[in-house]
Amino acid sequence: MRTEGKHILMDISGCKPELLNDLTFLKQLLVEAAERANATVLNVAFHHFTPQGVSGVVVISESHLSIHTWPEAGYAAVDFYTCGDINPKAACKYIARFLNANCVQITEIRRGEGNNGKYLHRVAETILEEDGKELSLLP
Amino acid sequence: MRTEGKHILMDISGCKPELLNDLTFLKQLLVEAAERANATVLNVAFHHFTPQGVSGVVVISESHLSIHTWPEAGYAAVDFYTCGDINPKAACKYIARFLNANCVQITEIRRGEGNNGKYLHRVAETILEEDGKELSLLP
Repeated sequence: MRTEGKHILMDISGCKPELLNDLTFLKQLLVEAAERANATVLNVAFHHFTPQGVSGVVVISESHLSIHTWPEAGYAAVDFYTCGDINPKAACKYIARFLNANCVQITEIRRGEGNNGKYLHRVAETILEEDGKELSLLP
Repeated sequence: MRTEGKHILMDISGCKPELLNDLTFLKQLLVEAAERANATVLNVAFHHFTPQGVSGVVVISESHLSIHTWPEAGYAAVDFYTCGDINPKAACKYIARFLNANCVQITEIRRGEGNNGKYLHRVAETILEEDGKELSLLP
């Protein structure tokens, strides 16, 4: 199996606090995002914190999708690690849209690039999306 | 709760293939690494692939620790996302040592750095460790 993977890190701000505190909604949203990206869901592990906040991970055959939320700050951290021919960036933007984020930062890291038995990663791209405008930042 | 987190991405090469294919061993190793870092383990989700390879995630109160392995290549991709006062880099190096890695690349990303209601991430450091020597690369 190919070792190359894409790892998307996304920080999203301005989200609706009540959505970031709703475990059932977030679980469904992440599973849907994974399935829309044609990933196969294998396992799901979510946890609700007291007084608020959710951590959750969806294990997929192409790797994993996770979310950690801070409802009091309207902030969530998402990462989507994939191998194979799926589009993790589109899935991340789908999540951001459903959480009503108004500021989205996405960094794409290429993992497992092999050379002489060594496998390395590198930052490929950073994007900042704010008020509907997309800026490409230097990696 | 503080939004700031450290997200460590680690690509490790030259690992023992039989260890990378041993779900029970990897689950124990990741739980131990999380506990040594003083993280509280909440949930564990692992999967063994056919013919080989393991994907696993440990959900911890300070976020998550994941591994994906390619035994045929001696390669594994690890990520450890933490909030609070724990040392994810030391835990990652502990994992690399137990898998007999001879080449380790670690990148530290700072997540959730807030400013005026916006939360962003940035690459803080990249380290390459090979044959016992540590090189600091530009982020």
